[in-house]
Amino acid sequence: MKLPTARLLIWCPDSKGIIAAVSGFLADCDANILEADQHSDPDDGAFCMRVEFETQGMSVARAAFVDAWRPVAERYRMDWRLAYATDRKRMAVMVSKQDHCLHDLMLRQRCGEIEVDIPFVVSNHEDLRGVVTGYGINFFHLPIAPETKGDQEGKLLKLLAEDRVDFVVLARYMQILTQQVVERYPARIINIHHSFLPAFAGARPYHQAYQRGVKVVGATAHYVTDDLDAGPIIAQNTAAINHRDSVSDLIRKGRDLERTVLSAAVRLHVEDKVLVHHNKTIVFD
Amino acid sequence: MKLPTARLLIWCPDSKGIIAAVSGFLADCDANILEADQHSDPDDGAFCMRVEFETQGMSVARAAFVDAWRPVAERYRMDWRLAYATDRKRMAVMVSKQDHCLHDLMLRQRCGEIEVDIPFVVSNHEDLRGVVTGYGINFFHLPIAPETKGDQEGKLLKLLAEDRVDFVVLARYMQILTQQVVERYPARIINIHHSFLPAFAGARPYHQAYQRGVKVVGATAHYVTDDLDAGPIIAQNTAAINHRDSVSDLIRKGRDLERTVLSAAVRLHVEDKVLVHHNKTIVFD
Amino acid sequence: MKLPTARLLIWCPDSKGIIAAVSGFLADCDANILEADQHSDPDDGAFCMRVEFETQGMSVARAAFVDAWRPVAERYRMDWRLAYATDRKRMAVMVSKQDHCLHDLMLRQRCGEIEVDIPFVVSNHEDLRGVVTGYGINFFHLPIAPETKGDQEGKLLKLLAEDRVDFVVLARYMQILTQQVVERYPARIINIHHSFLPAFAGARPYHQAYQRGVKVVGATAHYVTDDLDAGPIIAQNTAAINHRDSVSDLIRKGRDLERTVLSAAVRLHVEDKVLVHHNKTIVFD
Amino acid sequence: MKLPTARLLIWCPDSKGIIAAVSGFLADCDANILEADQHSDPDDGAFCMRVEFETQGMSVARAAFVDAWRPVAERYRMDWRLAYATDRKRMAVMVSKQDHCLHDLMLRQRCGEIEVDIPFVVSNHEDLRGVVTGYGINFFHLPIAPETKGDQEGKLLKLLAEDRVDFVVLARYMQILTQQVVERYPARIINIHHSFLPAFAGARPYHQAYQRGVKVVGATAHYVTDDLDAGPIIAQNTAAINHRDSVSDLIRKGRDLERTVLSAAVRLHVEDKVLVHHNKTIVFD
Repeated sequence: MKLPTARLLIWCPDSKGIIAAVSGFLADCDANILEADQHSDPDDGAFCMRVEFETQGMSVARAAFVDAWRPVAERYRMDWRLAYATDRKRMAVMVSKQDHCLHDLMLRQRCGEIEVDIPFVVSNHEDLRGVVTGYGINFFHLPIAPETKGDQEGKLLKLLAEDRVDFVVLARYMQILTQQVVERYPARIINIHHSFLPAFAGARPYHQAYQRGVKVVGATAHYVTDDLDAGPIIAQNTAAINHRDSVSDLIRKGRDLERTVLSAAVRLHVEDKVLVHHNKTIVFD
Repeated sequence: MKLPTARLLIWCPDSKGIIAAVSGFLADCDANILEADQHSDPDDGAFCMRVEFETQGMSVARAAFVDAWRPVAERYRMDWRLAYATDRKRMAVMVSKQDHCLHDLMLRQRCGEIEVDIPFVVSNHEDLRGVVTGYGINFFHLPIAPETKGDQEGKLLKLLAEDRVDFVVLARYMQILTQQVVERYPARIINIHHSFLPAFAGARPYHQAYQRGVKVVGATAHYVTDDLDAGPIIAQNTAAINHRDSVSDLIRKGRDLERTVLSAAVRLHVEDKVLVHHNKTIVFD
Repeated sequence: MKLPTARLLIWCPDSKGIIAAVSGFLADCDANILEADQHSDPDDGAFCMRVEFETQGMSVARAAFVDAWRPVAERYRMDWRLAYATDRKRMAVMVSKQDHCLHDLMLRQRCGEIEVDIPFVVSNHEDLRGVVTGYGINFFHLPIAPETKGDQEGKLLKLLAEDRVDFVVLARYMQILTQQVVERYPARIINIHHSFLPAFAGARPYHQAYQRGVKVVGATAHYVTDDLDAGPIIAQNTAAINHRDSVSDLIRKGRDLERTVLSAAVRLHVEDKVLVHHNKTIVFD
Repeated sequence: MKLPTARLLIWCPDSKGIIAAVSGFLADCDANILEADQHSDPDDGAFCMRVEFETQGMSVARAAFVDAWRPVAERYRMDWRLAYATDRKRMAVMVSKQDHCLHDLMLRQRCGEIEVDIPFVVSNHEDLRGVVTGYGINFFHLPIAPETKGDQEGKLLKLLAEDRVDFVVLARYMQILTQQVVERYPARIINIHHSFLPAFAGARPYHQAYQRGVKVVGATAHYVTDDLDAGPIIAQNTAAINHRDSVSDLIRKGRDLERTVLSAAVRLHVEDKVLVHHNKTIVFD
C-alpha cells in the first residue's frame, strides 16, 4: 500500500550544500524521503531538485510546514512549489473530432494510471458528446469561428476558473488557443503534436512526412506557448515506417504513438515530475 | 552455401500482367526466383519490382540474357537494371576527421556483412591516413579550400573514374560536394546526416537538438542531391535522450545511430534493394 | 477509395515456375495484383505465397474462380486458401477481469482499424458485462470450476458454432482451454501472453520477470496449441524497465505492450497475412 | 572541461535521515555534489545510494577523507565503497574467435568513451592475436582442454593479479570459467550472452531462437556467477526479426545488439553506476 506523499520542486542558483540543506530540513521534520533527484544546468548554473517524501509520521503538521520551510528557501534564493499527492489535480480535456487520445486518457484515469479528476471536456464540435458523457464526464460545446473565437475563449476561461482546473490537455484539439488563454496557464496546457518536432510543425504533419519520404514518424507532447508547436517538449517517440505506408497508414501508426506519448506526458505532469527552464523541460523520471 | 544470383529492378507504368510477364520470362529461362517484391505508387501509378533469382542452372547464358529479356521490357515500357551479385560493387569512402563510421564500414566489409571492394578512401584531412592504410586500403588526401575546390573535385572525379568506382559513401565527410560531382553519380552517393531529417538540417545538428530540448535524437542516411540534406532518405533511426544529456552525450549516443544507419543503407544499396522515385526511396527489404 | 480484394494463400513443395503459374493464372483472369509475397523455407524446401488482387474487373466470376484455379493448384500439389476481404471475419473475444485489451480491440474495431464483426464476448466472470454491452456487443457468462469445465466448454463450442465464429481472441482470458476447443480451431485462437516467450511462460510472468531482475519486459501474441504458451508466435514486442520498477509498474508498462502486440496480431490474422508452418508463423507483412 | 570527481556507493538498512547525513557530511567537506541517486528496496528495506562529487576545492584531503567519513558510515551501519574517477580501472578482456565485441571495446576505449586501461587480452585461440596487438595491447594465448583447464585458469589468475586487473570482460569468450576464478572477482566479471535471458540460456541461443520462431532477438550483459547465464543482469536490448531471417541473419543482427549492450554495461561498471543486491542490479543511470 502506498503512503501519502508530498513533492517539493526547487530551482535556484547552484551552490554547495543545497541538497544537504533540503534533506537536512526534511530529516528534522522526520520526513522519509522516497525519491530525490536534481539537475544542474551547465549553461547557466541553475540548480533544480525534486524531492518526494512521505507525509505520515512527520513531526511538522501540513499547516506549519511552509512556514518552517521558508527560511531554507530564502537562504538559497529558491523558487519552489509544493504539491501533495492526495490533492488530486483537476484536468480539463479539449478535443475536436478524433477520439483516440480521449479514450486513452479516460481509460487510464479510470484504472488509476493517471490520478486526476476530470471536471469536463470541451470541444469545438458536437461529435464526441456521447463518448464523453458515456464516461460520466460533463461535455461543453464551444464552436469556434474567427469572429467568435474571443468570446468562446472567454467562456472557456470562465469554465476553467469555476471548476478550479489545474491544467488543460489538448487531446487532438485542432484549434489554436490565443495568448489570453495560454498566458493564464503557463506550463499547464499540454498539447500532442503528431510529428517529431521540430520536423513537420503546423498543419497535416503526416502528409508532410509522406511527401518527404521519411522512414520514421513521431509524436511530441509539449507545453503550449505563444509560438505554435515550439513550446517545451515533455515527451517524444517515433515508429518505423516504409514506402508501402500510405498517408492513412501513417495516421493509423501515429495514433498509437500519440496515445502513449500524450498519456506519458500527462502522467509526468500529474506526478509533478516536470520543470520548465529556458523553454526546455527537466523531467525527473 | 549461397548460390550465385542476379537482381532485376524494374519500374514502368502500372498495368495488369507485369508480374506474370516477368516471372513467366524467368520460368522460361529456368531461373529459380528467390525473392520477388513489388510496389505500385498510388500517387502516379508507377510500378516498381525487384526480383532476385539464382543464375545457376539457367537455360539462357548470361551473355544472351539481356537480348532475351529486352522484348519483355519493351512491351511494358520498362526502365530496368540488372546486377549480378558476383560482380562486387566498388565503393569509395570519403571522410574528414571522425573515424567511427569509417571503422564500422571497414569492419563490416572485412567480416563479409557488406560485400564490396573498397579501392580507396579520400579525405580532406591527413588525420585518418594511418587508420585507412591499417586496413590495407589506399588513402588519398584532397584538402579543400574555397579556391581549390573545383580542382580537387576534378581530381576526385578522375580517381573515381580510374578505379571504376560504382558508388561513394560520405562517412562523416564535412564538405559539400558541388553539382559537378553530384550529377555524375545520381543515387550513387550516400551521406549520413546526424539528425532525423528534415529536422536539424545543415551544420551542428546535435547542438541544434540540444538547444531545442528534444527527447529523441536521430540519424539519416540519404542519397546526395543538389539540395543540401534534402535527397531521398534510405534509412533513419532515433534514440531516446533526456535533459541530463549534454551536447557531448548527444554526440556519443549519435555515433551509435550513425554507424548502424549508414551501414544499413550501404548494405541495402549494395544488394540492389533501393529504387529512387520522386525524391523518395522504395526499399525492397 | 479501396477496391474489393481477394487473398490467395498457398503452400506447396518448392519448384521453379510457381510464381509464374500463379501470376499467369491471375493475369488470365484479368485480376490486378496488389501485393504478392512469398517465402521458401530453407529447412524443408516448402514454398509459401500470399497474393492479394482486386476482384473488380475480373473476367472470371467469383462462383467460377475456384474451378478455374484448381488445376493450377493440383499441378503444383498446393494447399491453399482463398479469402475475400468483403467477407468480414467473425471474431469472438474471451476475457476474465482485466479490460485493457478488450477496450483496445473494441475501439480499433469501431474506428475501422480491425475489420471484423464481433458477435459476442465470453467471460468466466461477470465483471466486464457492462463494458461489453456498452459497446453494443452480446456478453455471455461462462464461469469455470474444475468440475464444470467440460460442460462450459461445450456451451462455448455451441456458441461459436451457432454464431459462425471464424476465430477467437483470448484478451487476457485466465483459463486454459482444453484440447476439445483447441483442436476445433487450429491456428484460429489467438492468445496474448504477458512476457517475451519462451521466457516466463506460465503464471504470473511479471512477478517472474521482477524476481529475475530483467531490464526488458515483453508481450507475445501466439496461436493456442495444446502445449501451454508454446504455440506459433505471431507478434512480440519489448519495453525497457529498470530497478525502480515494482511489479505493479511492470504490469502497467506491460499493458501498453499487450494492447499493441495483441491488436497487431489480430490485424494480421484478419488480413490473412499469417501462415503456420512447423509451429512457426510466416507473417506476410 | 570536466573536473575530477569521486563516487561514493552506499548500501545499508533504510532509515530516515541517511541522505541528510551523507549530503551534510559532503557539504561540511566543501564537496560539490554533481549527481546523487538512491533506491530503497521495497522487498527487504535495503537502502542504496550513489553520490558523485567534485574533489577539487574540498576542505578535506583525499588521505583524510575516509577517516572523516567512517563515523557517518558506522552510525547507519553502511557498507560502502569509494572510487576516484582519476584512478583509471584496469580491464582485462577475454575472447575466443569472434572479434566484433573486441573491436567495439577497443575503439570505444581509444576514443575516450570507456575510460579504462587495458593491460592485456586473453584468448583460448590464436586467431585474434594480430587484431589485439594491432591495437597495441598485450595478447596471451591460454588454450583450454578439459585436463588443462585448472592449470590455465591458474595462469589467468596470476596474470590478473600481476597486472592489478580490476575487472574482466568476456567479449564472446566461449569457455565457462570455474568457481576458482569467478569467486575471486565477484560482480567484477562481465559476460555478454547472445539472447534475452532467461530465454535461450546455454549454447547456440540464435539457433534456439530460430527453432522457436520468436519475433525478437536480444542480448544480455550480466555479471558472471557460478550459475551459468543466471548472474545479475546489467543491460539488455532486443531487435525485431521475422520469418525471412535465417540463423546467419540472426547472428548478424545480434552482433549489433551484443556490441552496444556489452559496451553499455562496461561503461556503467567503469563509472561505478552498478550495485548488486540479491542477484539483481541497481543501475544508477
